[in-house]
Amino acid sequence: MRNIKLTLAYDGSDFHGWQIQPGQPTIQGLLSEILRQLTQEHVVPYGAGRTDAGVHAWGQVANFSTRSVLTAGDFARALNALLPPAIRIRAAEEVGPDFNARRLAQAKTYIYRIYRGRVVPPFHWRYVLHDPYPLDFSAMAEAARAFAGEHDFTSFAASSGSDQTDQDRLTVRTVYRSEMLACGPESPHPSARPSPHLSIDSPPAALPWPVPGPEEWVYIVRGKSFLRHTVRKIVGALLEAGRGRIHPSDIPRLFELRDRTRSGPTAPPQGLCLLCVEYPDPTNLLGPPL
Amino acid sequence: MRNIKLTLAYDGSDFHGWQIQPGQPTIQGLLSEILRQLTQEHVVPYGAGRTDAGVHAWGQVANFSTRSVLTAGDFARALNALLPPAIRIRAAEEVGPDFNARRLAQAKTYIYRIYRGRVVPPFHWRYVLHDPYPLDFSAMAEAARAFAGEHDFTSFAASSGSDQTDQDRLTVRTVYRSEMLACGPESPHPSARPSPHLSIDSPPAALPWPVPGPEEWVYIVRGKSFLRHTVRKIVGALLEAGRGRIHPSDIPRLFELRDRTRSGPTAPPQGLCLLCVEYPDPTNLLGPPL
Repeated sequence: MRNIKLTLAYDGSDFHGWQIQPGQPTIQGLLSEILRQLTQEHVVPYGAGRTDAGVHAWGQVANFSTRSVLTAGDFARALNALLPPAIRIRAAEEVGPDFNARRLAQAKTYIYRIYRGRVVPPFHWRYVLHDPYPLDFSAMAEAARAFAGEHDFTSFAASSGSDQTDQDRLTVRTVYRSEMLACGPESPHPSARPSPHLSIDSPPAALPWPVPGPEEWVYIVRGKSFLRHTVRKIVGALLEAGRGRIHPSDIPRLFELRDRTRSGPTAPPQGLCLLCVEYPDPTNLLGPPL
Repeated sequence: MRNIKLTLAYDGSDFHGWQIQPGQPTIQGLLSEILRQLTQEHVVPYGAGRTDAGVHAWGQVANFSTRSVLTAGDFARALNALLPPAIRIRAAEEVGPDFNARRLAQAKTYIYRIYRGRVVPPFHWRYVLHDPYPLDFSAMAEAARAFAGEHDFTSFAASSGSDQTDQDRLTVRTVYRSEMLACGPESPHPSARPSPHLSIDSPPAALPWPVPGPEEWVYIVRGKSFLRHTVRKIVGALLEAGRGRIHPSDIPRLFELRDRTRSGPTAPPQGLCLLCVEYPDPTNLLGPPL
């Protein structure tokens, strides 16, 4: 058996999320179907993160096992030829048998885009939350910083489920970075422009969009793993802070509640994008990258 | 009667172009339908350029006459509430009775995006031509310059029709600017990076995209008006030059042919976007801008 690692991007607008669901279009379902055509095997790729319906990915990572003689490059080309343009394989490589996209993930980075301009350009509406109303950027930035570190995220989790089933009852998570970014002439806080040490880790050329744009605020969060809906619930809390409904200093109290049923609003999915997944180096590469 | 000027952006992917066609979704058709609901009048907005099916706009301009008491701002808000997110009114203003979006246009600027990377990001495929194959940028840039100036564009026109019916038999057009742009680390020609005096006239903040991106080449053309399909046929010729099938010095000969039937390939619509339309200043403004 060979083990193939895929790095993929997708526009989640027209999919019911990553995970296979009977009768619904999902990323994992479509990949499985095409891999079955290519290999005549029952192949299910496992992803690092189970993105919800409507959530996008630029750097989702998945792996699958196969007895096929196709090379990683063959798989990338064949998948890109057969998949719709809304799903693209950015890279494929053969990895050692121990590589598991979900279990070996050391960190996942998500971005959440908030469009602040009055009219959302028709080319961007699928990828942003539109909020043109008054929001206190400083309060949101301060609230964002309160999420960094190790916390029990029960109060910021969906009423059930996790993106990692085997950790369902472990609700303590570590967030390495949690930050609001804004720049451009519309920024109310020039000091909030990203300074070099705050810049997004991946090189900008690797980003699918200009981040952040002149009329856009971006929340970026990097952590080992997240409970189900946690990133969207963090953004929901940041928006509450921006509207003055909660104070950034309330966040520690919310952590202490540890009550899923009292968690706040969940920001809508379309602003969210899984930007990248990091693995220990080396990842047991057997073949050359695509 | 009052005269309302609209500046609008649209994603043309799912429309059969600007112009009303019975039984087909078009931008003009949808605007008319909603304006009729809002005013109880038979209102048809006339656009500066009749974009083809699949062609996008960032700065299309249209005007319509109405006896409605709604202000320009009311129209903008009501249209944006009722239109799909793929069509957005960016600005609305009341103008004098003589303003005609088509006849008064002094210049139109189009951009055509060519994505050069191996894999088109799923967020961009609707807006670019994907050509990852070898192309000689210098040849394309030289060919592009050959289109600037006053020429008879018969050889670069659709077999029939024009974007300005009353000029159907006038095939001489003036192009003010015709230029290939590329930048970013992938650019094969650092000298081709836009220098300040070559920068796009509109401020970059007004652009719907980062132009040009690191894996993207952009053709920009500005002229008083264009024959039907001319911009896409120019891009078709530039690609032929990039592939070495024609030489930039062939362009003057092609102008001399003046034969619609011998015109070259037409580049596909999705890479094209009507960026802006310019009018004489002042444009008889009666009301405040939106």
